[in-house]
Amino acid sequence: MITLSSDFGSPYPAAMKGVILQTTDARLIDVTHELPRQDVRAAAFWCRETIPYFPSAVHVIVVDPGVGTDRDAIMIRVGDHALIGPDNGVLRPVARQLSEQLQDETMGLKNNIEYFRYEYTEPQSATFHGRDVFAPAAAAIHDCGIASVETLDAVTSVPATATVQCKFPSATIDADDTSATGEVLVIDDFGNIITNIPGSFLADRAGEMATVGTTTAEVTSTFADVDTGDPLLTVGSHGFVECDVNHGQGTEIFELEVKDTVQIRF
Amino acid sequence: MITLSSDFGSPYPAAMKGVILQTTDARLIDVTHELPRQDVRAAAFWCRETIPYFPSAVHVIVVDPGVGTDRDAIMIRVGDHALIGPDNGVLRPVARQLSEQLQDETMGLKNNIEYFRYEYTEPQSATFHGRDVFAPAAAAIHDCGIASVETLDAVTSVPATATVQCKFPSATIDADDTSATGEVLVIDDFGNIITNIPGSFLADRAGEMATVGTTTAEVTSTFADVDTGDPLLTVGSHGFVECDVNHGQGTEIFELEVKDTVQIRF
Amino acid sequence: MITLSSDFGSPYPAAMKGVILQTTDARLIDVTHELPRQDVRAAAFWCRETIPYFPSAVHVIVVDPGVGTDRDAIMIRVGDHALIGPDNGVLRPVARQLSEQLQDETMGLKNNIEYFRYEYTEPQSATFHGRDVFAPAAAAIHDCGIASVETLDAVTSVPATATVQCKFPSATIDADDTSATGEVLVIDDFGNIITNIPGSFLADRAGEMATVGTTTAEVTSTFADVDTGDPLLTVGSHGFVECDVNHGQGTEIFELEVKDTVQIRF
Repeated sequence: MITLSSDFGSPYPAAMKGVILQTTDARLIDVTHELPRQDVRAAAFWCRETIPYFPSAVHVIVVDPGVGTDRDAIMIRVGDHALIGPDNGVLRPVARQLSEQLQDETMGLKNNIEYFRYEYTEPQSATFHGRDVFAPAAAAIHDCGIASVETLDAVTSVPATATVQCKFPSATIDADDTSATGEVLVIDDFGNIITNIPGSFLADRAGEMATVGTTTAEVTSTFADVDTGDPLLTVGSHGFVECDVNHGQGTEIFELEVKDTVQIRF
Repeated sequence: MITLSSDFGSPYPAAMKGVILQTTDARLIDVTHELPRQDVRAAAFWCRETIPYFPSAVHVIVVDPGVGTDRDAIMIRVGDHALIGPDNGVLRPVARQLSEQLQDETMGLKNNIEYFRYEYTEPQSATFHGRDVFAPAAAAIHDCGIASVETLDAVTSVPATATVQCKFPSATIDADDTSATGEVLVIDDFGNIITNIPGSFLADRAGEMATVGTTTAEVTSTFADVDTGDPLLTVGSHGFVECDVNHGQGTEIFELEVKDTVQIRF
Repeated sequence: MITLSSDFGSPYPAAMKGVILQTTDARLIDVTHELPRQDVRAAAFWCRETIPYFPSAVHVIVVDPGVGTDRDAIMIRVGDHALIGPDNGVLRPVARQLSEQLQDETMGLKNNIEYFRYEYTEPQSATFHGRDVFAPAAAAIHDCGIASVETLDAVTSVPATATVQCKFPSATIDADDTSATGEVLVIDDFGNIITNIPGSFLADRAGEMATVGTTTAEVTSTFADVDTGDPLLTVGSHGFVECDVNHGQGTEIFELEVKDTVQIRF
């Protein structure tokens, strides 16, 4: 199985699929091609939230603002999964989450993340390495077998420190637990505003009111706990605090955009 | 085969697919993940227009404004098809259409709609039952076999009346057949305004002019019967009257939105 | 394998897939359903840029502003590929590109493009031939085998001249090679403005400055050669000159829309 993730929209991913299918009949699954354009951190967030749910696969992830520069291509192997993409920080948080999920399932599988550089020759284009570099790489890794990638000439083992790590900002919670300050990581297709404040900050507070900027909102365990059109704070499926609106877009009421600072005060 | 329908956009459906593929290698087909957000009636409309064209499959349909409340999960079996989703009215119109289509094909298959409650245990999240409840349910039903769903512990037969029915509004046609009043059900990606007025109201009227609000439009059998940019009334592929514009968006000329009242007068 | 391309958005393509899967278990791959609506030239451009990367397949391509009129359905066979769609010019540029790609791979395969009319009976709807005509046609061609399509009753061989050819406009380059005048063909999902000016016009000019309208931009080999937010001219993956912005949308800086004239002056 090969999964595909990118910020390419449509129809560029089709060229990637065509190239892959020239050499393999692997099952292909689109994770998404609507990642926020050229936003490495958002790509890491969304791939971390989706890819660890998959069974063993080669996951090709291409959000590539440095396409055509001399940035490396890397591969990370986590158990029976392989991640392949440009070395710009997207892959490492995904690998870490995959590793934790695999440890939960099989236990005792520590230190199961292995890093590789993937050497590529001059591609056909300078602007579409998804098609010219990463699609053929994914097909080659798939057909070689994830357990045997070292046998590919293009693959060289490297230490983790030789690869780029995307840093997520930390949220801070004040000493008396009455306020938390974080950042908007992404806004989803429902308009839910997803912050980096850990969901534990809202534990046992369902029904309490908090303020975010000039908005006062109830802490709830789900959307329907407030009236249609009302704002709410809840813990999303990814474990972080979200600023949402029941049957509406969080962005309509909370005046927040991606990368804005968010302060929640009780 | 498992088909997936939702209002999730991207990338949430990928997590559903990952969960499904953990336990089954069923073929997966996306019907759509762009259903109008949290609009139960629109979801019923679009799934009714697409799902009955499929061969035997488990169809998971998640438009779920009540996620995290105590609303049930239900399953409807129609011949060799199974529909699974939240019990909020979406599934029943789809089941009915599926049943009629199967009766056309095989004849004599009356009363082939069976209703079940699908019991689920406390899911991982309160806001993403697509991933935590319905994806595993679809995989379980698929691997059990649609004909044998009663053997699943989670499945309990219930009467139709124990499930929620989404009501579509009725259109009215006046006694002398010169005007019809209905409602906008959905607007498609072409900007075609799809009403609930039955196509039969336009029968034998191609070439006549009618008014809708302040717009006068020709009744045509297809788009190209009027000039580029001109409005028209036609019977869409779903059998209802549409307010369209040739090579344009119906919404540019007809001042109509979803749920607006539409009156067509000859 | 059957690939699907259209301007249908969502969810109409699902009905096409359902119809196809009623009679075949062919692998289905979406090329795109987001082709610019009813723009025959843009459809030809994007399908030409993606479909030739695929291995042998039936490619159904439906951008169909003349749906419901008496325009023909055609099929073009190129080696072991078949293209099927309305006869409005979209298919021929795709066939030509496919043919060139196959010639590169296998050599000596000249004159490998064959044209056919595909006769269809009165379809269920006048507005959705994707579902009612082209989906069943694709399934029938797939199951018959591309090499044997002549055995289908619906298929009649015709000369190329009996089919519609979509014309792309020509760009002109002045005698002293200091300016080129062309047209915007399409704008992609990144906001890159893709012209019909051949990439060769920028050969050996990386680092030079050129003007496009009131904008001055550097010629680069890739995006990251200019600062974030700066305009650039580069050769895209399709071989044409693009007007782009690094980490931004070309459309924010260059005041250009599809079909606008573009003049580049050194």
